[in-house]
Amino acid sequence: MNLVLITESEAVEGFAADDPRAQHLRETVGVRLGSTFHVGIDNQRRGLATLASLEPTLRFTVQWEAVPQTRLPLTVIVGLPRPQTAKKLLHDLASLGVDRIVFFEAEKSDPSYAQSSLWRDDEWREPLRKGAEQACSAHVPSVRHQPELVSALRDIDRQGWNVSLDPYVASGPLGAAAKNFSGGCLALGPERGWSDAERQALADAGFTAYHLGDRILRVETAAVAGASLMLAGLGVWQEHRPLGG
Amino acid sequence: MNLVLITESEAVEGFAADDPRAQHLRETVGVRLGSTFHVGIDNQRRGLATLASLEPTLRFTVQWEAVPQTRLPLTVIVGLPRPQTAKKLLHDLASLGVDRIVFFEAEKSDPSYAQSSLWRDDEWREPLRKGAEQACSAHVPSVRHQPELVSALRDIDRQGWNVSLDPYVASGPLGAAAKNFSGGCLALGPERGWSDAERQALADAGFTAYHLGDRILRVETAAVAGASLMLAGLGVWQEHRPLGG
Repeated sequence: MNLVLITESEAVEGFAADDPRAQHLRETVGVRLGSTFHVGIDNQRRGLATLASLEPTLRFTVQWEAVPQTRLPLTVIVGLPRPQTAKKLLHDLASLGVDRIVFFEAEKSDPSYAQSSLWRDDEWREPLRKGAEQACSAHVPSVRHQPELVSALRDIDRQGWNVSLDPYVASGPLGAAAKNFSGGCLALGPERGWSDAERQALADAGFTAYHLGDRILRVETAAVAGASLMLAGLGVWQEHRPLGG
Repeated sequence: MNLVLITESEAVEGFAADDPRAQHLRETVGVRLGSTFHVGIDNQRRGLATLASLEPTLRFTVQWEAVPQTRLPLTVIVGLPRPQTAKKLLHDLASLGVDRIVFFEAEKSDPSYAQSSLWRDDEWREPLRKGAEQACSAHVPSVRHQPELVSALRDIDRQGWNVSLDPYVASGPLGAAAKNFSGGCLALGPERGWSDAERQALADAGFTAYHLGDRILRVETAAVAGASLMLAGLGVWQEHRPLGG
């Protein structure tokens, strides 16, 4: 954890000594009075915290960054995968800094996936927050669910560069197509791929299909590879430096 | 598993009905006599197998591909990470199709990592093979170990495009630097990063440092992102299509 996500009120009042974040700071990081660590208010500003008390609440003063980190205007829409895969996606896409993730029930998604405790019990929030904390970012992607691809496509801004990954109808390699752009959407099917109707819906919505070479990648690997190739074309991705760097 | 790795003799004689690959084909894939599935001889040719018998050995005839899949001339050298991370790296780098992985004991690697059963008991071969099988490729990366970065740098062909990932001394974003090249090497530090002496050794060996934006990524995520950005510049990556596609 390279940053601790906090709320606005926690920035003033701290949090309880038995909060998991307090335990992590004490036991894993080994903070003492006067130690510094990064904090971020969910989707707002980051800062360097200095520990002022450990008991009964963990309190700190914060020197906030002058300019908040810019969000990366990339949306990823993905056919609902098995819960273990979804957890990795949530973590890794949050780490990469994508702005929004839209899961849709694809024709080849297994309907049981939507019933998982991952979604029912809010477990999905944990890998998402851990991904942002790993990345030292206060930006936590928004996550939405749609019952099918067509409604997912209505749920996104389609004005930008719209890419689908599909080795079977690809117009060419995504790597060679990468370009400077100011926002866009990456669409991935579920493990078993796109249906023909979904391929048509993507084309109708202005998506261009690309491949990632001839290796068949797991959904979570394809998401990191595809998102990285797109993010590389964003000016804001190219400019940034680590907090304090 | 999109392909079953076999040996040359197994291509002729098949394998025992209690072999894990036979069990997988029967129980997970659900093959019957006449079913087809992809096979590949380790680092040679792939083909479409047709099942000829299930008992007492699983035998098949194979229609071999006319031209073997090209290897992707990318080497990844990486500071020895914790075993769980190394397993993910082995799987994902094999899936992406990199040619060689060299692990070195970095100054900031934990020396206990090298003693893990992952390396002692040959467990490392499993994620590597599974990564290639996932990718439907017969190319399994070679894996080597070196006691330090300097010997790892002597162990590789350094004639190509040599990139290190280092947010602290980066010359710029890897995405914007990506280019057409015919072979190269990607160097990643361990979880805790490069030492100053290692930074100097990389510079002396002709490596240029790049960053992947301002998010701090786990080693396994950075490896997939960095390797994808480099692979995208390989002509052989751009040309390929899936087996049978």
